[in-house]
Amino acid sequence: MSSGPPIPDPQTGVPFATVAVVGLGVMGGSLARALSALSGGPLVVGWSADDGDSRAAANQGGIHRRATSLEECVDGADLVVLAVPVDATCTLLGHLEDLTPSHTVVHDVASLKAPIRDAARAANLTPRWVGGHPMAGAEASGFGGSREDLYRDARVWITPEPDTAPMALEGVMALWRALGARPDITDPDGHDAAMSMASHLPQLTANLLVRVLAEAGLSPGELGPGGRDATRLAGSSPEMWMEILRHGAGTTGSGHLARGLRALAGGASHLADVLDSGDLTEVKALMEETRAWRREP
Amino acid sequence: MSSGPPIPDPQTGVPFATVAVVGLGVMGGSLARALSALSGGPLVVGWSADDGDSRAAANQGGIHRRATSLEECVDGADLVVLAVPVDATCTLLGHLEDLTPSHTVVHDVASLKAPIRDAARAANLTPRWVGGHPMAGAEASGFGGSREDLYRDARVWITPEPDTAPMALEGVMALWRALGARPDITDPDGHDAAMSMASHLPQLTANLLVRVLAEAGLSPGELGPGGRDATRLAGSSPEMWMEILRHGAGTTGSGHLARGLRALAGGASHLADVLDSGDLTEVKALMEETRAWRREP
Repeated sequence: MSSGPPIPDPQTGVPFATVAVVGLGVMGGSLARALSALSGGPLVVGWSADDGDSRAAANQGGIHRRATSLEECVDGADLVVLAVPVDATCTLLGHLEDLTPSHTVVHDVASLKAPIRDAARAANLTPRWVGGHPMAGAEASGFGGSREDLYRDARVWITPEPDTAPMALEGVMALWRALGARPDITDPDGHDAAMSMASHLPQLTANLLVRVLAEAGLSPGELGPGGRDATRLAGSSPEMWMEILRHGAGTTGSGHLARGLRALAGGASHLADVLDSGDLTEVKALMEETRAWRREP
Repeated sequence: MSSGPPIPDPQTGVPFATVAVVGLGVMGGSLARALSALSGGPLVVGWSADDGDSRAAANQGGIHRRATSLEECVDGADLVVLAVPVDATCTLLGHLEDLTPSHTVVHDVASLKAPIRDAARAANLTPRWVGGHPMAGAEASGFGGSREDLYRDARVWITPEPDTAPMALEGVMALWRALGARPDITDPDGHDAAMSMASHLPQLTANLLVRVLAEAGLSPGELGPGGRDATRLAGSSPEMWMEILRHGAGTTGSGHLARGLRALAGGASHLADVLDSGDLTEVKALMEETRAWRREP
């Protein structure tokens, strides 16, 4: 393996000849499948602590080579992508300094970036670590829930640090572009605060709405397409969310989220009074204003 | 035209040779398109007060014949389907007693059923009126937002009255089945009360959530697929909803809706306190309980 600067493939623009994907669930599995299917793309080596995901990925051509250990997976990789939950990502970053040479770029796709940035810094990996968060997902979990086109047209937040090697950053951006995604740069703390509103608040709203519907005796089959969309997030994994919310606790993001929930509570309570009053002027204004927002880019 | 009992077409099971579709927006347009495309299906005559919808439906083969007035549209029809908003449906029912002979079946697809039942009763139409509400829709409006497959697999609530002619009821059920929809019988008041939770509460929750996100400075482009789903209903038509909510005001449905909003407010406010406390046990229980509900049929 060369230790010089990575040379982009002339066809794909991806400057990594070998990519190790660690974790083959929805996120890692989808990434591995998309990369494996890329004409002129890198060699994709995969490993998962979940043997079922690992076998499924190998049997279905989702990876080119199945590694039997983390060590074997990252050995010789130009890029290692960690596609595991937040806590596992932090733990693995601690191992990667020893397991990989200094020219191996390290990327991750976890949905919080500040705790992972802290772990990367503690492991002295920041010059070659590039954080990422693709705004994509699926209700199903595991490799069975992965899709080759999951990231097509998806925005991918990229969080470089001041000491990130420009080549590492450029390489990761090129990889996402090659898959049809839209990488955009932000900073880890700003990202996590924005996610508390863009992602965590809609998530908890869906959970709260479902509790009200369930307590009213409704079953999901009685919902129309709109009600199904509005409650879809209630199918998300509690385990994954507990990690996210635990990391958020005590941070700016947590404060934003609690404020968002209180604003929602105030709005809902006021709207109930308005409906009781029979004067629907305010309801109309709310609907017009929020429809206009929804039409913004 | 025969005035005897309708004879089901042997191929489609639909016992109407001529169907008049009044209103050619998303709902009426989709119905007209699906019926027109049905092999061995009825002759579909369409009319809309919106000239653009009417022309588009005719030009794109969505109807077999374009009528230039309501009178012309319903003349000779075995079935008249009203696919217009709630108030317009009530008004048109008042005209249909004079415009159609007593063997013409009258159906409607508006999303509230009690006010329309009252209008049908006032017009002496109940023996031949069959109320319906397909649980399907689209964000776009007008014929341009219609889809031939909108009703495939959709549940369609059907609300017969005690004096509904069995042949009328059977005919309307057969029509929906021929389009691949799932007609199910309920009563108008029970339907409207259930909709206040299954449809109106998710609608207003989406509006309230969007207001919080907008006030936090977010733009729709910053949402991931989950956030987009959770806020999709905020794109609904305020005009349509004002009619629905105005009819609901003072009814059981309105009481349900206000109670649902207050339950949502209480839940959101409590959840904010829980997040501030840092003990996430209750959040986990909420997520597990609501995921289990989402997996029910």
